[in-house]
Amino acid sequence: MRATILYGAGDVRVETVPDAAIVKPTDAVIRILRACICGSDLWPYKEMPAGGAVRPMGHEAIGVVEDVGREVRKVKRGDVVIMPFAYSDGSCDFCHEGLPTSCVHGGFFGVGGEAGGAQAEALRVPLADGTLYVLPVGEDDARMAALLTLSDVMGTGHHAARGARVARGMKAAVVGDGAVGLCGVIAARRLGAEQIIVLGRHADRIALAKAFGATDIVSERGAAAIERVRELTGGFGVHAVLECVGSDQAMRTAMGVVRPGGAVGRVGVPHYEAIPEALPAFYRNVTVSGGPAPVRAYVDELLPDVLAGRIEPGRVFDRVIGLEQVPDGYRAMDARRSIKVMIAS
Amino acid sequence: MRATILYGAGDVRVETVPDAAIVKPTDAVIRILRACICGSDLWPYKEMPAGGAVRPMGHEAIGVVEDVGREVRKVKRGDVVIMPFAYSDGSCDFCHEGLPTSCVHGGFFGVGGEAGGAQAEALRVPLADGTLYVLPVGEDDARMAALLTLSDVMGTGHHAARGARVARGMKAAVVGDGAVGLCGVIAARRLGAEQIIVLGRHADRIALAKAFGATDIVSERGAAAIERVRELTGGFGVHAVLECVGSDQAMRTAMGVVRPGGAVGRVGVPHYEAIPEALPAFYRNVTVSGGPAPVRAYVDELLPDVLAGRIEPGRVFDRVIGLEQVPDGYRAMDARRSIKVMIAS
Repeated sequence: MRATILYGAGDVRVETVPDAAIVKPTDAVIRILRACICGSDLWPYKEMPAGGAVRPMGHEAIGVVEDVGREVRKVKRGDVVIMPFAYSDGSCDFCHEGLPTSCVHGGFFGVGGEAGGAQAEALRVPLADGTLYVLPVGEDDARMAALLTLSDVMGTGHHAARGARVARGMKAAVVGDGAVGLCGVIAARRLGAEQIIVLGRHADRIALAKAFGATDIVSERGAAAIERVRELTGGFGVHAVLECVGSDQAMRTAMGVVRPGGAVGRVGVPHYEAIPEALPAFYRNVTVSGGPAPVRAYVDELLPDVLAGRIEPGRVFDRVIGLEQVPDGYRAMDARRSIKVMIAS
Repeated sequence: MRATILYGAGDVRVETVPDAAIVKPTDAVIRILRACICGSDLWPYKEMPAGGAVRPMGHEAIGVVEDVGREVRKVKRGDVVIMPFAYSDGSCDFCHEGLPTSCVHGGFFGVGGEAGGAQAEALRVPLADGTLYVLPVGEDDARMAALLTLSDVMGTGHHAARGARVARGMKAAVVGDGAVGLCGVIAARRLGAEQIIVLGRHADRIALAKAFGATDIVSERGAAAIERVRELTGGFGVHAVLECVGSDQAMRTAMGVVRPGGAVGRVGVPHYEAIPEALPAFYRNVTVSGGPAPVRAYVDELLPDVLAGRIEPGRVFDRVIGLEQVPDGYRAMDARRSIKVMIAS
């Protein structure tokens, strides 16, 4: 079968690899209907040293179950499923607590460990019963793009909003205008935020942010951005900040725009070693929360809104390619010519 | 009148100063019945450079109202009151949201600003109606020590437990065996924690921690302490960490013992510039919360338990002195010969 392999910074290839197959009795194999390229894929695409272990890429997919191991009970051949970016047994303490990304038997797709990558024709899914979410739709459903976002970006935007404790009537800020930030706008609006300030500066993304419910756009950076957000919020900043980038500057901005008693929900993978502004955040009683989104646990909450069309996170995909064009997709996202690239089989 | 003034590290004096008096129409003047020395007073006592501005000390008190300004409505002469460590107007957005320590017109006692210090015979209290909490007790009430803790340490321990999201059945850890940590044990137990691990090593404090409900004591430091807490909790750490010290090492330990999905409530004034372990905390979806406790807002919740004797935070006071002995009290606390020193008029 064909699959995407990263060899080092800037060197991503679609290659023929051994077919995905059942290895453990709790596995399933899915044929990939839709996959995509994630902003987080760009980090290794920009930074991974060549010459070491290669990395199968992709961790977001909608698939059709093609085969199941003999211990799989809930998932069956022909099911159309969401494949969340993490696999999980669905039965450990953390899974029961709604945190499948900390499953004691779990792991992540597309990072080079036991599991492969979803930017491929097919994929072996460990712990299929705990991991896969069976959808009530057919392979040709028109909402496929929106459903695909439940495997990562929409759930991640929702996690940022939850971590930031967004509630009805609040003022919120979203740091970052990438696909996760845009889904964060959807999530903040869905949870009732009254004012939603997006910090970003790309015209296409800002237009989509406004369509999703952003009320204000701040295109400044750093201290000027903090100043502008405070001006827009009566001087105090926002109750809830969704940090959707992961850089040190983004985190500093997030800590600077949050109001006393407010919260920062961080979902950008940290490229900072320590959380800045420890002392001012203390004096202002700021909460910092977040991490890898337990997207599997959020599907029950978000799916009805996707199926009913009340939210349209699929609009973050502004380019659709075939699997063989994946290297072009990486280049387009890296150059910000595309918000998010969908791979259709 | 007599009052405590810090001149520089190690140089604290009780001196004759001008009598406390009404300055603004919203002020009250209280005669101090009980005050105390706080662990946080030891930071300037150890570090403040001599030769600069001097600092009136003390921010915790029970008093009797002696005089009120012409705009004071709720508080009247003769009332026995709790003086929280921060003053607040009781009417701004933050006060309404339960965060009087961020009051837009507020400030702190005993830090050298507009307000004086409570280690004195009397004190001018700004914004008396918002700040003071009138108690239903007389000047000679036997529960005075416990009531005094509601001005800071008991409310602060409670804030750590709230920030750490302690709930029924949880495993909790308390970093620090000072008066705040000990009150944190009371708070964690009160909120239903099942296992309460105290990280500390002073025999007198550990005995009191056990009396307050600690189930386990860890006397190791650093990596060994983290390892020991994990052993005591099935390998995963605790749901809730109450960080009651404020040093970089204490915060690192707190971040090391918290379980995936858990929370750290920090109330020790940070002597670190950034919150450590940003990346592992992210991958484990750890929440960090806390700051100066809104103790004024907690009195309604805690007072009934104090009055009924269901909690006995007054036991943290193991030494009672008169005002003239305050310098001895600082020395005793600094040398850890005393957990917390009460000053009785």
